Amino acid sequence: MPVPDPNLYPDFNVIRLSHTCLNVADLTASRKFYTEILGLQVTDETDTHIYLRAMEERGHHCIILQKSDRPGTVEVMGFKTYDEGDLDRAEAFFRSKGRPTEWVQRPYQGRTLLTSDNIGIPLEFHHKMDRLDPIHQQYALYRGVKPLRIDHFNCFSPEVDASVAFYNDMGFRVTEYTEDADSKKLWAAWMHRKGGVHDMAFTNGTGPRMHHVAFWVPTPLNIIDLLDLMSTTGYVSNIERGPGRHGISNAFFLYILDPDGHRIEIYCSDYQTLDPDHEPIHWDLKDPQRQTLWGAAAPQSWFEHGTEFVGTKPVEAMLKATPIIAP
Amino acid sequence: MPVPDPNLYPDFNVIRLSHTCLNVADLTASRKFYTEILGLQVTDETDTHIYLRAMEERGHHCIILQKSDRPGTVEVMGFKTYDEGDLDRAEAFFRSKGRPTEWVQRPYQGRTLLTSDNIGIPLEFHHKMDRLDPIHQQYALYRGVKPLRIDHFNCFSPEVDASVAFYNDMGFRVTEYTEDADSKKLWAAWMHRKGGVHDMAFTNGTGPRMHHVAFWVPTPLNIIDLLDLMSTTGYVSNIERGPGRHGISNAFFLYILDPDGHRIEIYCSDYQTLDPDHEPIHWDLKDPQRQTLWGAAAPQSWFEHGTEFVGTKPVEAMLKATPIIAP
Amino acid sequence: MPVPDPNLYPDFNVIRLSHTCLNVADLTASRKFYTEILGLQVTDETDTHIYLRAMEERGHHCIILQKSDRPGTVEVMGFKTYDEGDLDRAEAFFRSKGRPTEWVQRPYQGRTLLTSDNIGIPLEFHHKMDRLDPIHQQYALYRGVKPLRIDHFNCFSPEVDASVAFYNDMGFRVTEYTEDADSKKLWAAWMHRKGGVHDMAFTNGTGPRMHHVAFWVPTPLNIIDLLDLMSTTGYVSNIERGPGRHGISNAFFLYILDPDGHRIEIYCSDYQTLDPDHEPIHWDLKDPQRQTLWGAAAPQSWFEHGTEFVGTKPVEAMLKATPIIAP
Amino acid sequence: MPVPDPNLYPDFNVIRLSHTCLNVADLTASRKFYTEILGLQVTDETDTHIYLRAMEERGHHCIILQKSDRPGTVEVMGFKTYDEGDLDRAEAFFRSKGRPTEWVQRPYQGRTLLTSDNIGIPLEFHHKMDRLDPIHQQYALYRGVKPLRIDHFNCFSPEVDASVAFYNDMGFRVTEYTEDADSKKLWAAWMHRKGGVHDMAFTNGTGPRMHHVAFWVPTPLNIIDLLDLMSTTGYVSNIERGPGRHGISNAFFLYILDPDGHRIEIYCSDYQTLDPDHEPIHWDLKDPQRQTLWGAAAPQSWFEHGTEFVGTKPVEAMLKATPIIAP
Ligand SMILES: [Ca+2]
Ligand SMILES: [Fe+2]
Ligand SMILES: [Fe+2]
Ligand SMILES: [Fe+2]
Ligand SMILES: [Fe+2]
Repeated sequence: MPVPDPNLYPDFNVIRLSHTCLNVADLTASRKFYTEILGLQVTDETDTHIYLRAMEERGHHCIILQKSDRPGTVEVMGFKTYDEGDLDRAEAFFRSKGRPTEWVQRPYQGRTLLTSDNIGIPLEFHHKMDRLDPIHQQYALYRGVKPLRIDHFNCFSPEVDASVAFYNDMGFRVTEYTEDADSKKLWAAWMHRKGGVHDMAFTNGTGPRMHHVAFWVPTPLNIIDLLDLMSTTGYVSNIERGPGRHGISNAFFLYILDPDGHRIEIYCSDYQTLDPDHEPIHWDLKDPQRQTLWGAAAPQSWFEHGTEFVGTKPVEAMLKATPIIAP
Repeated sequence: MPVPDPNLYPDFNVIRLSHTCLNVADLTASRKFYTEILGLQVTDETDTHIYLRAMEERGHHCIILQKSDRPGTVEVMGFKTYDEGDLDRAEAFFRSKGRPTEWVQRPYQGRTLLTSDNIGIPLEFHHKMDRLDPIHQQYALYRGVKPLRIDHFNCFSPEVDASVAFYNDMGFRVTEYTEDADSKKLWAAWMHRKGGVHDMAFTNGTGPRMHHVAFWVPTPLNIIDLLDLMSTTGYVSNIERGPGRHGISNAFFLYILDPDGHRIEIYCSDYQTLDPDHEPIHWDLKDPQRQTLWGAAAPQSWFEHGTEFVGTKPVEAMLKATPIIAP
Repeated sequence: MPVPDPNLYPDFNVIRLSHTCLNVADLTASRKFYTEILGLQVTDETDTHIYLRAMEERGHHCIILQKSDRPGTVEVMGFKTYDEGDLDRAEAFFRSKGRPTEWVQRPYQGRTLLTSDNIGIPLEFHHKMDRLDPIHQQYALYRGVKPLRIDHFNCFSPEVDASVAFYNDMGFRVTEYTEDADSKKLWAAWMHRKGGVHDMAFTNGTGPRMHHVAFWVPTPLNIIDLLDLMSTTGYVSNIERGPGRHGISNAFFLYILDPDGHRIEIYCSDYQTLDPDHEPIHWDLKDPQRQTLWGAAAPQSWFEHGTEFVGTKPVEAMLKATPIIAP
Repeated sequence: MPVPDPNLYPDFNVIRLSHTCLNVADLTASRKFYTEILGLQVTDETDTHIYLRAMEERGHHCIILQKSDRPGTVEVMGFKTYDEGDLDRAEAFFRSKGRPTEWVQRPYQGRTLLTSDNIGIPLEFHHKMDRLDPIHQQYALYRGVKPLRIDHFNCFSPEVDASVAFYNDMGFRVTEYTEDADSKKLWAAWMHRKGGVHDMAFTNGTGPRMHHVAFWVPTPLNIIDLLDLMSTTGYVSNIERGPGRHGISNAFFLYILDPDGHRIEIYCSDYQTLDPDHEPIHWDLKDPQRQTLWGAAAPQSWFEHGTEFVGTKPVEAMLKATPIIAP
C-alpha cells in the first residue's frame, strides 16, 4: 500500500479548510453566479472584493471573489487552526520544509500566515475569523443549490505521492486513494482533518492547479434543483459533469464551472471518518466504478481543465497512466 | 404545425395502456431482475409465464414475462377500454383500417381483441382484467425502485407522421412533439389517453420496434436508489442512460436494459394533460435541451437499440435527419 | 356498502375541478401569502381581484382572490367541462334537480353556468378558459411550496350520503369513504372525475362550508421546505396540522390557514384511479389509521373550522358520530 | 449566560460516542425491531447478546442488545478515545472526581475503563474496537430507516447545570442550550466532541435516565419511509413523536420506542460545529419553536418517559419549571 501511516500527532493542529480567494474578471457576473445559482450569502462587498458564506457557516467567508487582471486564477487556499499557537508552530513547520512564510493582513481574519506547500500551492492559515450570527434557520434566505458549507479542495499535483507525504506530515489523514497498479504510484488521494472524507484531495495532472472547490448539500434533490435552474437561466453550458455518484467517497456529485472557469463541485452523501484508526479504502485506477459507481465515464475536460494558482508555474505530471475517459 | 387536431370523439374509448408481454430466455434471471431490481410484485407464475404488477395497481398484471425461443422480442402491447362495447367498436375500427382482428383468450383478462396498428405493432384490447386487493399501503413489500404503475410505451416508427395520424384517429392526443425543421416531418411524438404526458410515444427509426416501456415513481430519489442498487449487485452494465431530465415531458428519467435487452424507463415529474384543449409543445430536432434539459447528449445505443415485435419485420425510417448523439 | 354504483354515463362531462374564488380582507396580505408562501404565480390583478395559477397549469387561474367585505367566505367553486355542449346539458341537469341556474360573465372564462349543488354550494361550470404559455420549465420562477396544480376541494356536508348521491349522479366516482359502523351512514367520501383520488370530498359537519382547497406537489420535501419557511417568516401560527400521511388516499399532507382562515392543503402521494371498475376503499370511522396512517390524532379545529359559502346558511350535521380527536 | 467556557485542553481526548448496551426481555423481538425497522446490521450474536452496527460504521458495534431480567434498563454508554494513553488519563480524571473506576473485559473491544459520571450514568471508554470491512456501498443490505451511524445520547439529569459542568471538564463543548429565564438555570444542553451538534445531551428531569439514543440518516424521506413501514407492520404504537423539526439543533426528527421502551431518535439536518470558537445558541424554555420549529407541542410522555441505568436510583429534578406540553 503506497499510503503512509497517519501522523496522529502533527506539529500543529489544522481543524479544517476555511476559504479560498478566486480571481475573477467581472464581479457583477460572478456575484450573480455565486448568489443566485450557488446561493451563497454576501457578507461584505467592495469595488474589488465580494465575501460570501454558506448557510450554516458562522465564519465571515468561505469564498472571496477578487477582481483581477488575471481572472481564472486562484489567489490562495485558507485553513483554520485550533488555536493561535498553532500558527507559530505552522510557521516553524513550513520553514523547516524550506517554504517561504509571511505574516499578512487579511480583512475579517486575525493573524494570518501565508506560505505554500511542497508544489507551490499558496496556503494561508489563521485561527480567528470574524464570527457572524447564525442564518441556517432563516429559510427565506435560501437560494440556488442551498449550500450548507464549504467542504473540500481538490488540486492537480504532478506527483501525488509527494503531495500526500507533505500533507500527511501536517496530520491530514488519507481516507481513500487510487493506485496505478503498474507503477504502484498514487493517482489520487483524499485527505481529511475535520472528520469527513476530505479537506484536500490530489489528482495526478499538470500542477499545481485547482481542480475544484466543493460545497456540501444535504440531498441529491438540491443538485437536481440546481440542474433545472441552471438549464433554464442561461447556465446550461456551465454544467460539466454529473449528476452521478463517485465510487470513491460515495459522493453524489455535480461539477459546474463559474464564469471564469473555476470548477465548483456540489456534493452530498459522504461519511464520518474521525476515528484515528479509520482505514483508507484502496481503488485501482482501472476500476470504472471508482469514478462513477454507476458506470458512466467522465468527460475529458474533467481530467484536463483546472485553474492555476497565482505565482506558480504548473509542471507536467510524472505519472503517465490514464484513467477511463468518455469516448 | 405537423400535428393533427385531436379527435375528441373517437370511435371507441381507450382509457389507458394496460400491460405488455415480453419474451425472455430465462424466467429465473428475469424474475430476479423484475422483482428485486424493478420491484414489481408477482401475481401469478407458471412454468412458462410470470405475471407482475406495480405497487398501486389493482389490475392483475402490467408485465407478462413469457418464456420463449425468441427472447428479446415483444409479444403484444395491451390497452384497457372504458366498457365492453368499446371492444366491438374497436374491432370495427381496426377492420375499417384493413387491420387483422381476432378474439383471443388471455388468462385473467375478459374478452380480448388482438389486432395490430398501421405499422404492425401487435395490440390487444380488453375491458376486464381480474382485480386484486390494494397493496400500496403494504410498505414492507416495496422493493427495488418501488414502482407505482406502468406509465407508457415508446416505439420506433419508420414514419412517425403516419403513426401519429393512426393513433390520433383512435383519440390519442399529442402532448409534445419533435419536428425536423427541414422536412417539416415529425421526428417524435408523445400521445396520451389517460391525462398524463403519454400512453404511447413514437420515435423515428427502424420500426416497428419497442424502444421502451416505462414505470412511474414519485421522486428522483427512487431512481438514485436504483442506480446504487444496480451498481452494487451485478447490474452496472444494464444501466444505459441517465439519470437526467428530458426537456420533452420534463421527465426525470433513467433507462436500463433487462436481461433480454428490453429497455425499461423509470420516470417521474410528468404533468397533467387532461384538458381537451391542452396545447402540444413543439420542439426542434436540433434543440439539445429537447433530449436532456441539462445538456448531456444521449448515447448512440439509445437511438439504435430496440426490441422487435413478434411477427413483424422492421423497415428503415424514411426520415434521415439525425438528433444530437454523444461523441 | 353505503356507496352507490358509479354513474359511468352521466348527463354531462365534467373533466376536473378548475378554480375557486376566495373572499379576502386585504389583497396585499393575501398576495404575499399566496405568492411567497404558496408560490402561486399572479396572472392578472386589479384593485379588487388577483388571479393566480400553479406552475404546471395552462389555464388562466386556479385561485381568484376577491377583495370583499365578507372576508373568509368562499364565492364559488369552478369546474371545467369536456365541451361547450356539456354546459347546456349541465344546465338541464341542475334545473331537473330544482337548482337555480344562471349564465354569468367571468373574466378569462368562456360561457359560464352558475348554479349550486343539493346543499347550496355555489358551483360554476365553463368549458373555455384563457390558455397561457407553459412555465413549468421556468425553474427560476418556483417559490414557496412550488405547487404544480390545484388538486381538489373538500367541503363539510350536513348529510354526506345526500352529497355523494348528488355528485354520483354527475358522474363523480367514489374512491375511498368512511362509514359510521353504527348508523351505516357515510362520514366522509372522496370523489373524482379526473383519474386521481378526488376532485371533491365531503366530510360530515355543519355545512355547506369549505373545509379546504388542495394543491399537488411532487414530494414530501416540498412540504418540509414550506414548514421551515412558514416557521421562520411569521407564519408559524398558520400551520394547523401535519405533516402526516392520511390512511385515506395515502396522501402525505399539510394543512395551513391563509390570512382569512381559508384552509389550504398541500398534498402528494395520491394514486391513479381512472379505471371505471376501480373499487372504492372502505374505512371505519373508528380506525385511527384512517386519519393518520402513523397514528397521530387531528386537532379539534380541523374537525370544526371551515369557511362559509356566500349566500348559504350552514346547518348542523345529521350524523352525530365522532371521529378520534387529539386530547 | 449559564454555559461555562469550553475546556479546549481536557485531560483526555474522547473523540466520539461509540455504543450503548441495552437490556431487553426478548432477543427475538428486539432483533426483529433493530434489523427490520431500524435496519441495523448484525455483526455477532449469541444466546445472550446481539451486536449491531449502522451502514457506514467500521467499528464492530454501536448497539449491544443484552438479554436481561431487568429489561428496559440501560447497561452502559460507551465512548472511544483518541489513543490508548487517553484511557489512563481518563482513569485519573474519574478518580480525581471521586468516581469508581474499573478495567473490564468487553468482547470486540480493547482495554475498557468502566466508570460513571457525576450523576451515576455508567460510562465505558475504549480506544480499540474490532474494525470491520466497509458495507456502505453494499446497497442491497440497506433496510428499514437505512441508518448511517449512531449520532448521540440524550439523558435526563436532575441537575443539568451540574451535568454540563462535569462533561465540560471532559472537553465536551456546548452547542445549544435552553435556559429557564426565572431561575437562570439550564433546562437542557447539547454537547459535542465529534464536531456535530452533540454526542451527549441533558434534559431536566428525574434522572439519571436515558432519554434516547439517536441514529443519523441523510434525508427526511428516510424518516417518512420508516413511518410508513412501522404503521403497516404492527409498530404504529411504537411511534411516539414526530416527524418534526427541532428549533434546537435544526434536526428533522422522529422518536420511536423499541419493544422494551428504550427511546430511539432518527435524525437528520444537524450542522458542523468543530470550530473551537463555535458560539452556543441560547433558547428560552418558553419559546415554543425551541422544541418544534413548526409549532407543535411534544406529548407528555416525551417529557416523562425514560429508561433507567443499571445500578442507579433516579432522583427528582431540582428545577421545577415546565416546558410547553401538548394539551
Ligand atoms: Ca463531522
Ligand atoms: Fe470533490
Ligand atoms: Fe419514455
Ligand atoms: Fe384534501
Ligand atoms: Fe436527540
